[in-house]
Amino acid sequence: MYGIIGNITTHPGRREEFIAILLKSTTKMPGCISYVIARDAADPDTVWVTEVWDSKESHDASLTLPEVREAITQARPLFASFGKQVITSPVGGYGLTPR
Amino acid sequence: MYGIIGNITTHPGRREEFIAILLKSTTKMPGCISYVIARDAADPDTVWVTEVWDSKESHDASLTLPEVREAITQARPLFASFGKQVITSPVGGYGLTPR
Repeated sequence: MYGIIGNITTHPGRREEFIAILLKSTTKMPGCISYVIARDAADPDTVWVTEVWDSKESHDASLTLPEVREAITQARPLFASFGKQVITSPVGGYGLTPR
Repeated sequence: MYGIIGNITTHPGRREEFIAILLKSTTKMPGCISYVIARDAADPDTVWVTEVWDSKESHDASLTLPEVREAITQARPLFASFGKQVITSPVGGYGLTPR
């Protein structure tokens, strides 16, 4: 499995719009095993995304899906910055549901 | 929902033992919606745990479960340090499976 833990900070007050775009665009991604979108509890403009995929190839391929490409275009004006991304190798746990 | 993103670094070479304890002890936690255990791809002694709970109360209560208390006792000698923990408010995504 291939995992990514990352965060995105939006321009002030734009987090909910950004979350709505993410929620809509990430429902049908082949190879996705877990994809959790979360508000940072301390920073009002930061969103965390924690992802688990069956492989890096499935993750990379997801970026070419029409829904995802459209979401990136819609969301780009809302971005202020990306946090440091952590790459992981998930081993197990609960809530890992292969599509 | 209540979320935690955190990492633990074990003493050198002890990561797999630590992961085995975590995998065994986290299978039956009421209120747990997602619990992903992952190796850091860059640091050979670091483990990431990303958790989603129905409430902070369910998370806190999990720490008193016999399986979890026993795991904490077993795992303590393997710990070197904790990373900064991020508290989140998960909003949705894929793989969120209420128990």
